[in-house]
Amino acid sequence: MKTFLTATIACLMLATLVTAQDAATADSAPNELVRHVVLFEFKEDATPENIRKVEAAFAALADKIDEVTDLEWGTNSSPEGLSQGFTHCFLLTFDSEADRDTYLTHAEHQEFVELLRPHLEEALVVDYTPRGK
Amino acid sequence: MKTFLTATIACLMLATLVTAQDAATADSAPNELVRHVVLFEFKEDATPENIRKVEAAFAALADKIDEVTDLEWGTNSSPEGLSQGFTHCFLLTFDSEADRDTYLTHAEHQEFVELLRPHLEEALVVDYTPRGK
Repeated sequence: MKTFLTATIACLMLATLVTAQDAATADSAPNELVRHVVLFEFKEDATPENIRKVEAAFAALADKIDEVTDLEWGTNSSPEGLSQGFTHCFLLTFDSEADRDTYLTHAEHQEFVELLRPHLEEALVVDYTPRGK
Repeated sequence: MKTFLTATIACLMLATLVTAQDAATADSAPNELVRHVVLFEFKEDATPENIRKVEAAFAALADKIDEVTDLEWGTNSSPEGLSQGFTHCFLLTFDSEADRDTYLTHAEHQEFVELLRPHLEEALVVDYTPRGK
């Protein structure tokens, strides 16, 4: 009887552990991903060459910083007139907020910010963990 | 000889046509995709319930408008303090600018805008055709 009780308690504890693990996975894992949306407006005196260098340096961070799992960018083509002066959008993806934080303080990112700063009129940054349709 | 010449000219014309077609495809097809980035700041008097309805109605457009090939959204989690008051980001994808234009004037989209308007402090929209890393 003692053995039966011990086995039953062990089974219950295991079941509780497995259920807790499942719940934790269901709650956090699918929502961990982070999108990092960055908009730039350049100064009026920024030359096309200045801007090309900033675009290339930002895009190059995808290969320099492991935590960046995806990077794409483009220039505004909206016909709605609601871009508030922003001409460039960069969309970076990270596997987690921790990876995003690593990116923010990464030496290669800091170096890019130094290159960007003299030509930047304004930046806007929004991060979000994507929910589906 | 006349037949040979005619056949040669026909072949050359065909080759030119095929080459031109290839070049056009290479230039435009991979860049046609359009990302539509929409940021919202809600009015101070918008209730959590108002905001939930707007979120749900926007997300529902993915099923109501065929031209929307992807839609994801989330609330701002950036630690950088550069979101300029925007709290929500919606990212929609279209196969082309023509599809984006269809979406903008679609009755279901217009209906959503009417639902959104009373609660909206400010919107920012940037569209871009993604370039890679």
